[in-house]
Amino acid sequence: MNEDIKYMKRALQLAKKGKGYTHPNPAVGAVIVKDGKIIGEGYHKKAGMPHAEREAIKDAKEKGYDIKGSTMYVTLEPCCHYGRTPPCTNAIIEEGIKKVVVATLDPNPLVAGQGIEILKKAGIETKIGILQEEAKKLNEDFFVYITEKRPFIHLKIAQTIDGKIATKIGSSKWITSEKSRKFAHKLRLEASAVMVGVNTALKDNPSLTIRYIKSKKQPKRILIDRYIKTPIDFNIFNQEAQTILFCSKNADKSKIEKLREKNIKIYQLEEKEERLDLKEILKILAEEEQVIHLLVEGGKDLITQFIKNQLYDKISVFIAPKIVGEDGISSIGKLDILDIKDAKLLNINLIKKIDTDIYLELGRF
Amino acid sequence: MNEDIKYMKRALQLAKKGKGYTHPNPAVGAVIVKDGKIIGEGYHKKAGMPHAEREAIKDAKEKGYDIKGSTMYVTLEPCCHYGRTPPCTNAIIEEGIKKVVVATLDPNPLVAGQGIEILKKAGIETKIGILQEEAKKLNEDFFVYITEKRPFIHLKIAQTIDGKIATKIGSSKWITSEKSRKFAHKLRLEASAVMVGVNTALKDNPSLTIRYIKSKKQPKRILIDRYIKTPIDFNIFNQEAQTILFCSKNADKSKIEKLREKNIKIYQLEEKEERLDLKEILKILAEEEQVIHLLVEGGKDLITQFIKNQLYDKISVFIAPKIVGEDGISSIGKLDILDIKDAKLLNINLIKKIDTDIYLELGRF
Repeated sequence: MNEDIKYMKRALQLAKKGKGYTHPNPAVGAVIVKDGKIIGEGYHKKAGMPHAEREAIKDAKEKGYDIKGSTMYVTLEPCCHYGRTPPCTNAIIEEGIKKVVVATLDPNPLVAGQGIEILKKAGIETKIGILQEEAKKLNEDFFVYITEKRPFIHLKIAQTIDGKIATKIGSSKWITSEKSRKFAHKLRLEASAVMVGVNTALKDNPSLTIRYIKSKKQPKRILIDRYIKTPIDFNIFNQEAQTILFCSKNADKSKIEKLREKNIKIYQLEEKEERLDLKEILKILAEEEQVIHLLVEGGKDLITQFIKNQLYDKISVFIAPKIVGEDGISSIGKLDILDIKDAKLLNINLIKKIDTDIYLELGRF
Repeated sequence: MNEDIKYMKRALQLAKKGKGYTHPNPAVGAVIVKDGKIIGEGYHKKAGMPHAEREAIKDAKEKGYDIKGSTMYVTLEPCCHYGRTPPCTNAIIEEGIKKVVVATLDPNPLVAGQGIEILKKAGIETKIGILQEEAKKLNEDFFVYITEKRPFIHLKIAQTIDGKIATKIGSSKWITSEKSRKFAHKLRLEASAVMVGVNTALKDNPSLTIRYIKSKKQPKRILIDRYIKTPIDFNIFNQEAQTILFCSKNADKSKIEKLREKNIKIYQLEEKEERLDLKEILKILAEEEQVIHLLVEGGKDLITQFIKNQLYDKISVFIAPKIVGEDGISSIGKLDILDIKDAKLLNINLIKKIDTDIYLELGRF
């Protein structure tokens, strides 16, 4: 294997350790190599903590190595602006690193090639594009967040082979296997926030926390509930994670007050055709809440709104090998499609068997 | 690899060459081994032609080998009764074969262990059960046909991710990719007969022949059309394959006459609650038409009848990564299931990607 690829693979491995914990920052890994040997490794652990480059430099120093003249492999272009931490380009230059190999440029307009320019001007050799696809895939949510100025939208559906999420009287526990439900908590771990609509909150009383797997964080919980029909003692309003409620300007004031007392963050929006506007919600989530990866867990009406408005980047479908029949409740509502050529087209990015179920990851076509 | 397994694998490979062509007989392969070397190979090519054992003996003789003292590997117990060909046990005994290794016993009550008994009595060493599961799987249709006295029922569905076979106005060409449609012709090759209901005949005017792949046969075509609404000049009544029509005793006599002139075979049945009785149809197909493997290609109502009545052994589902929405036409009709625990449960036997689609083979749970 090519040396560049070998070290960049290691940097990507390191980056993955931070996946899910770095929002609104991307997951980044870095490796410092000298005389054909890795002398320092690091990854970005959490927003506010040092970037991967600085972690790797610290690691090498702690191990007593002289960094001067070494090569750094980093999965994303080093930053060159002052954020919560000083620019990584400074550190790289100060430490006398000779060469920097980067998997992909940072789409953030505050960086976007300028990090590389600064290194070049300082006389540092640079190389871009090693394992670029993998690096972009790893931070696909961050790339969408930066370029589209909205959260990466990830829809989750659990259904039967014939596309049903419940029987005609709403019986749905459980469609999928225990292992699938456990796996679904991994999806929550990758998300900055998990969203449900009022019907799901009322019917399932979900807590939306990560419980089936170990996690050092809980994603924010987002509830879309125009008239706050969800009772105040329901799980989504408990103290296990932060909750954000989107409701109408006309929602009951006393309920709002009580929820604020429980530290629920509330955004009151204008109604448009008896709905809250998804795009407005997404804008708030991106700008005010730094939600880079939004996992939408249901119900049917909310999922349908996202699909209708072409607002999705990834759809995770858990399919149980069961048949309920057309009188069951569908996973996706009416779309008013006439010609089959106008059906929403997706890409299958992953097919995986989970216990008795099938798991699909679908992307935009 | 164990010698027995090695030679039985080869016998199974040979058997597969006949798969689809031997109905109502099973697909069988045989290998003759002497002094650690294969001296003869054969498989059953077609009903009426010699069985695998005799083909292998003929092959060894043509190559000039002395069969005496050899070992025969055969994927199914040798027959011991006079059918269209004399018993294979006779040939094995006459040729002085020393040992017979069998993958699985023949479920046919005319054989069912008696073939082995006869060989034993003749002083031939026997061994049973080598690669038994593979051998049973290869002839799963034949096993069902013999033990249940009905055709092996194989349902075929081509649908979107959300379980739709067409848009709300019936637009359906094409849901799945060209490669999936080509693969569907392989399913026809494994079938003795292909069945559709009147709605599919009217809507799609299918010819139901094997065209996209090479084939030395055409399966019988079965049309369920109570009142012969399908026009006489439709493809299903052309001369490219044999067609069998099931209609009501009250169907139009002049239409029946015209179809008989076109060599269409017609069974007129009593109606039961405005339907023809599926079980009666299956009995006729098994007993009169020697259909061991029935591929049901639609439409929705016919597929639903089979599922409702628990009449299915295998379901092949082609899933295109598309979404049509709940106002589209469902792949499976109403089943009146209330509790999710009563949903029809299936086993996933195979997951395969075909071009842009997913192909699933589901079995009974």
